[in-house]
Amino acid sequence: MATIRPHTLSGFMELLPEEQQKMERLLQTLRESYALYGFTPLDTPVIEAADVLLAKGGGETEKQIYRFMKGDSDLALRFDLTVPLAKYVALHSGELTFPFRRYQIGKVYRGERAQRGRFREFYQADIDIVGDGKLDIMNDAELPAVIYRTFTALGLERFRVRLNNRKVLSGFFEILGIPERSGDVMRVIDKIDKIGAEKVRDSLTGELGLAEETADEVMRFLSCPGSSAEKLAFLEGYRGRSGTFDLGLEELSTVVRYMSAFGVPEDHFEVDLSIARGLDYYTGTVYETILLDHPEIGSICSGGRYDDLAGYYTDRVLPGNGISIGVTRLFYVLQEQGMLSDEILTAPAEAVVIPMDRDCMAFAVETATLFRAAGINTQVYFEDRKFKQKLAYADRAGIPFALIIGGNEAAEGVVALKDMAGGTQEKLSPADAAAKVVSALQEKRACRVIRG
Amino acid sequence: MATIRPHTLSGFMELLPEEQQKMERLLQTLRESYALYGFTPLDTPVIEAADVLLAKGGGETEKQIYRFMKGDSDLALRFDLTVPLAKYVALHSGELTFPFRRYQIGKVYRGERAQRGRFREFYQADIDIVGDGKLDIMNDAELPAVIYRTFTALGLERFRVRLNNRKVLSGFFEILGIPERSGDVMRVIDKIDKIGAEKVRDSLTGELGLAEETADEVMRFLSCPGSSAEKLAFLEGYRGRSGTFDLGLEELSTVVRYMSAFGVPEDHFEVDLSIARGLDYYTGTVYETILLDHPEIGSICSGGRYDDLAGYYTDRVLPGNGISIGVTRLFYVLQEQGMLSDEILTAPAEAVVIPMDRDCMAFAVETATLFRAAGINTQVYFEDRKFKQKLAYADRAGIPFALIIGGNEAAEGVVALKDMAGGTQEKLSPADAAAKVVSALQEKRACRVIRG
Repeated sequence: MATIRPHTLSGFMELLPEEQQKMERLLQTLRESYALYGFTPLDTPVIEAADVLLAKGGGETEKQIYRFMKGDSDLALRFDLTVPLAKYVALHSGELTFPFRRYQIGKVYRGERAQRGRFREFYQADIDIVGDGKLDIMNDAELPAVIYRTFTALGLERFRVRLNNRKVLSGFFEILGIPERSGDVMRVIDKIDKIGAEKVRDSLTGELGLAEETADEVMRFLSCPGSSAEKLAFLEGYRGRSGTFDLGLEELSTVVRYMSAFGVPEDHFEVDLSIARGLDYYTGTVYETILLDHPEIGSICSGGRYDDLAGYYTDRVLPGNGISIGVTRLFYVLQEQGMLSDEILTAPAEAVVIPMDRDCMAFAVETATLFRAAGINTQVYFEDRKFKQKLAYADRAGIPFALIIGGNEAAEGVVALKDMAGGTQEKLSPADAAAKVVSALQEKRACRVIRG
Repeated sequence: MATIRPHTLSGFMELLPEEQQKMERLLQTLRESYALYGFTPLDTPVIEAADVLLAKGGGETEKQIYRFMKGDSDLALRFDLTVPLAKYVALHSGELTFPFRRYQIGKVYRGERAQRGRFREFYQADIDIVGDGKLDIMNDAELPAVIYRTFTALGLERFRVRLNNRKVLSGFFEILGIPERSGDVMRVIDKIDKIGAEKVRDSLTGELGLAEETADEVMRFLSCPGSSAEKLAFLEGYRGRSGTFDLGLEELSTVVRYMSAFGVPEDHFEVDLSIARGLDYYTGTVYETILLDHPEIGSICSGGRYDDLAGYYTDRVLPGNGISIGVTRLFYVLQEQGMLSDEILTAPAEAVVIPMDRDCMAFAVETATLFRAAGINTQVYFEDRKFKQKLAYADRAGIPFALIIGGNEAAEGVVALKDMAGGTQEKLSPADAAAKVVSALQEKRACRVIRG
């Protein structure tokens, strides 16, 4: 009778239950971490009017977008969470309190060429702070702290936030006498991690036609070595030659100065003058975040400061600052690299009650209710199978505790609590069994989703 | 410069931050409640191949579906979470443990005619239990308990789960000698809440051409009065005349018998012989859930037993049982009826630190870090405004506690903790202030999203 081959579209992540539990833990940690910094959750439609989503128009985005007609409506699926935020803030600005701090975790869609590790449907987890007219530079100093706290809460240790300021770069290009090439040069140097310094230099002199000595000075600037403090000292050497540069340097120094007050350890951030971010959109501080052991993966959390979020929708000037985690890709990478913890509980329940027969059912159900009241995720195995098969279910499902209830137990009002991993078994009252399970689970529940 | 009018499509819910906080609380309660019963979370793509989603084909669904081409691919947005579950289970059956208990909370899409309270994008929150070959009737008794526990956790009190069994109905139609009209009759009587008993009777004799006495007996059957026990006693009168009926009665009796063991109070469930559910799909126990004070809203949580989940995709017989909450519509109704609590915290943060000037900034940030370590959602107000405006922000945003830090406080290492609602203010160490805020928030945090 089966007539259709069940399949999931390529480029769409669909996890098995054990992996999904890890993903849920990751998402929940993100929600909690973002909320802890006073970001309010937001949810916007996946479908928007195409003219709204494509207000900015053009480029790669337009080719990748899922766009279609429904009746007379020209619709599109969101391809990021920033454009919907711009629409939201422009539409509801009269009802929002500024600075408006929001997080949004949701699926976005890009019809990219399918390839390993590339997804057409993926979660983004964004935070943005949007000001009304202006927004203090202290917000720029706070974002690395949010990143630090968030990844630490996930269990990640070896990562680093790299930061720069686009005004420093564009000011520097002014000083070099190539202000009109600023955007082009940034797009080229943004590729330095991917293609290497040599090819960047080739592009600067070749494609962009810069003079040899100008290209040399750009390359020297980008590869400036040393600590963040040493880089700031290096930048001081250029001070006084461009207003844009001086402002950028001021901002960058302020951000760096407050890192320790914000609790970001020295070895978890660095000024990197080669961070440009490709998008024209950014106008000040920019961020990337790398895994120290896997720099080849590229940035796992990026963002920056923009002067005007919603210029296409409103004349109100709304500057902001935000970062985004590509959650689906991050999850995929963590899985590939074996960095997801095997310690967290991925079973559907923490305990399963196994009644030996129908006569024990009422007591079994009551025991499960008592367990749930103690906050233990608990199921009852209802199927009429042999005892061995019932226990095999608990084992296969990976449920750590089984509560076996036969006629004797039901009559005595006790349960046989079996530790599935240890194999030990003891008779206890349901309340004592619940207390024991809660205490045994404590460590597992606190376990972080990423290996240290 | 603004060129595009920002707007959100009609039929798509987009909430302001305060309402969104309530929605998040609702969703989080659903997740926790479902998990407590040992359902594992699942997430499947919003987009599926059209042939997979429409395997069952035809009818209203096909007209409402969002379907479009992307390159050569014929794609569609999911219109419920049941078809994706069927696909998932058929596709991954070798890797799942049965009975497979999953919950899924996600957006689904139906291009319905837009009207008040109807949504084209809406959340469904589903649980299903899928067996391999067979599935015990005890699972049918558990679902009303999950519904009861879930709505109670949300804060709802005056609701009732109504249940019936489709075998009882189809067996009864066999007894009446109209077995071949079973599906048609059920579709008609499913409308009884909407159109009333009289019109149902008219349809039975008119549209369906049943004899007057047959229609009378159907109506007498449907409107059988009394308690659940009395209705079961009434049904006993038909026993022995149809195998289907007898089996259905057995199942229904078992479900009712276990309600109290499952902790569902007498006044929160009832057998209702007029519950048919329109879909052919259901083959046994069926559920609806009504708000006692708003029966006109119809069922807020429905579902039932089905014999074969994934027959279109696999020859493996996968019977199951599930229920679904239409979350977006429920939220809309609760909002309309003023049933959402005003007590829960809807501000972006629980506390805001207000430094008087830049010199207090480091201490302000450290205080915020200490507050966050105590689990308090905390922001720092960074903007360079007058003190009055800073405080006005806390007020407008509805943040219950402000921590004011001026030069004196920073020097002494204390904060001025201001209770925004009470207006009181006192100087405390950051640690004492955090302890005080945690204790003051306890009640608010435990508050349920629906008014009692």
